[in-house]
Amino acid sequence: MPPPFRFDLQATDGAARTGVIHTPRGNIRTPAFMPVGTAATVKAMLPQSVRATGADILLGNTYHLMLRPTAERIANLGGLHRFMNWDGPILTDSGGFQVMSLASLRKLTEEGVRFSSHIDGSKHMLTPERSMEIQRLLGSDIVMAFDECPALPASDDVVEKSMQMSMRWAQRSRDAFGDRPGHALFGIMQGGVNKGLRQASAEALTGIGFDGYAVGGLAVGEGQEAMFGVLDYAPSFLPADKPRYLMGVGKPDDIVGAVQRGIDMMDCVLPSRSGRTGQAWTAMGAINLKNARHKDDPRPLEEGCTCPACTGYSRAYLHHVVKADEIIGSMLLTWHNLHYYQQLMAGLRAAIGVQSLDGFVAGFHAKRAAGDIEPL
Amino acid sequence: MPPPFRFDLQATDGAARTGVIHTPRGNIRTPAFMPVGTAATVKAMLPQSVRATGADILLGNTYHLMLRPTAERIANLGGLHRFMNWDGPILTDSGGFQVMSLASLRKLTEEGVRFSSHIDGSKHMLTPERSMEIQRLLGSDIVMAFDECPALPASDDVVEKSMQMSMRWAQRSRDAFGDRPGHALFGIMQGGVNKGLRQASAEALTGIGFDGYAVGGLAVGEGQEAMFGVLDYAPSFLPADKPRYLMGVGKPDDIVGAVQRGIDMMDCVLPSRSGRTGQAWTAMGAINLKNARHKDDPRPLEEGCTCPACTGYSRAYLHHVVKADEIIGSMLLTWHNLHYYQQLMAGLRAAIGVQSLDGFVAGFHAKRAAGDIEPL
Repeated sequence: MPPPFRFDLQATDGAARTGVIHTPRGNIRTPAFMPVGTAATVKAMLPQSVRATGADILLGNTYHLMLRPTAERIANLGGLHRFMNWDGPILTDSGGFQVMSLASLRKLTEEGVRFSSHIDGSKHMLTPERSMEIQRLLGSDIVMAFDECPALPASDDVVEKSMQMSMRWAQRSRDAFGDRPGHALFGIMQGGVNKGLRQASAEALTGIGFDGYAVGGLAVGEGQEAMFGVLDYAPSFLPADKPRYLMGVGKPDDIVGAVQRGIDMMDCVLPSRSGRTGQAWTAMGAINLKNARHKDDPRPLEEGCTCPACTGYSRAYLHHVVKADEIIGSMLLTWHNLHYYQQLMAGLRAAIGVQSLDGFVAGFHAKRAAGDIEPL
Repeated sequence: MPPPFRFDLQATDGAARTGVIHTPRGNIRTPAFMPVGTAATVKAMLPQSVRATGADILLGNTYHLMLRPTAERIANLGGLHRFMNWDGPILTDSGGFQVMSLASLRKLTEEGVRFSSHIDGSKHMLTPERSMEIQRLLGSDIVMAFDECPALPASDDVVEKSMQMSMRWAQRSRDAFGDRPGHALFGIMQGGVNKGLRQASAEALTGIGFDGYAVGGLAVGEGQEAMFGVLDYAPSFLPADKPRYLMGVGKPDDIVGAVQRGIDMMDCVLPSRSGRTGQAWTAMGAINLKNARHKDDPRPLEEGCTCPACTGYSRAYLHHVVKADEIIGSMLLTWHNLHYYQQLMAGLRAAIGVQSLDGFVAGFHAKRAAGDIEPL
């Protein structure tokens, strides 16, 4: 009998890969984009609508959920899946990244991070052990090891010290996670933009052994070029038979570049956040619906798109509801953006499957170059 | 061939009636509750979701639409139905009531009302003729005559002068509307809480001749008892073979009392507005989801309700998303409230159809008395 959590790599094209992650809650087609459901909701969407865009898996945020409504409360209510009415797989982050971004409100030690809630100022402590406990209470299918990372740029010394502590935390996470069939624990590679540190981090993690590996510490201010620079080598340090997850990425062209370099999973708030501020992502580039040039435009947001925003409404309507601050504007644009992202992932998967990724990527960039991209 | 707009009265029970209004865009089962789509959207709902609650017809607001995006723009884009992606019937108000509530920003004369936009301060004039033109540009299926009414309490003299002008405006509305097969024009009875003035208004309107008649000038501060007092006689002054519409009403018990007194159509922002402030309407009464007593409650909002909020989520989840100010809270509670309102209308229609309205109403009040109604 195959293990209840496993990764089947189905095809490669250069460094790029396509496959399926099998979980007891359903399959995840890779490369996969995971919409973010921070506070037990993908903002402005019903879960069945998120599913309809083609999403196989959602991301939940340990930091937000531990504060409100609390992991214990969610556990008592039957877990995060039942709580938020999503029966597919859920990946939860460890809380580390978000706690670290609280800046002055937190204190970092070898033990973990002590911090004050941004909601009510209450005091909390996150450690590898507590993060594992919270993610277990939530019922997460893919649990992330607890780590921390400095904002870039940072000196090699700072990056190395941080990475070494994250590796000790990775071991503590592994120990605390225990043996939970059907649930996966992913380790997180650190090391900034330093190749040697990335390799050392990868070796430490593979020595511990995880069900998947994330490339952490990117999309933290280093820029796309530096990020791609790391992705040119970092994925190859990781086992080929386990999924590779690039955290917090990104814009469509970030995603395409990451997939070309061997990344299997990504998540980002961008499509949903953009949707709440009148910004749409399309194959032709980004469109700002607040712009007055849309106010008489009878065309759909994106010709040929099958999402409800494009099949039911004109750009003029979307402009109107965005300007009038109507909730339906957030609902329709978020739906479109998530739909576009999932279409992009489906295109990438199909192209890799037939070894035509170069052509697909060339077409991706050509459409954007020909489009009426607006600065956002 | 039957006329393209007609009312088939199918059964009565006491003063209450049930029937069907036939329109070229679909049938309206009466008594009907019309959700309000002020700015070309029923807030926090997609039109297909509004339809799924059981709504046959929406209401649009002339005042809001004339200012933004403007009636001319909507006409150029193919009319309000296409603009907002709702293919069923639409009733539009005349703009009179909302312009009058601008208070100091407007000036009333025999010609009409001059006013300043609440959005940008721009100057506008609404007259019976302009209101008819705007409602034609919008493509409204049921057009309301342009009228005005004083807030209650008001002296008989003030109410009579206002009513007389509204009757002259009703004639001007009728003249300006012209002959538009498939589109209906409704007159609006005024007269405050004065029976003689109500009768005089009804006679003036029926002398002009309309496709339906509204009872206007209620739900403006007089209270339920005074409103029911008027409804005890006012509907009987109107032709039995035309639909009767009570504007801007109301809470569930207002609706039940109005239907008992012979009203066929109603509209109100209450279910959608409540849904955006954490308030739910149920057969057991009103529930405030902000209340901390819901935070661990695994039960659905309303047992047996088939709406997405009740089939997919616990009260604890609804409490969480309302407290966290998540859009899904507005989406789910608005859906539930509109669903509950339409279920109530379906129950009223069925009861009238089998002459058991008294029993239905007794059950309606008994459930509320037994329920855990919270003050809102």
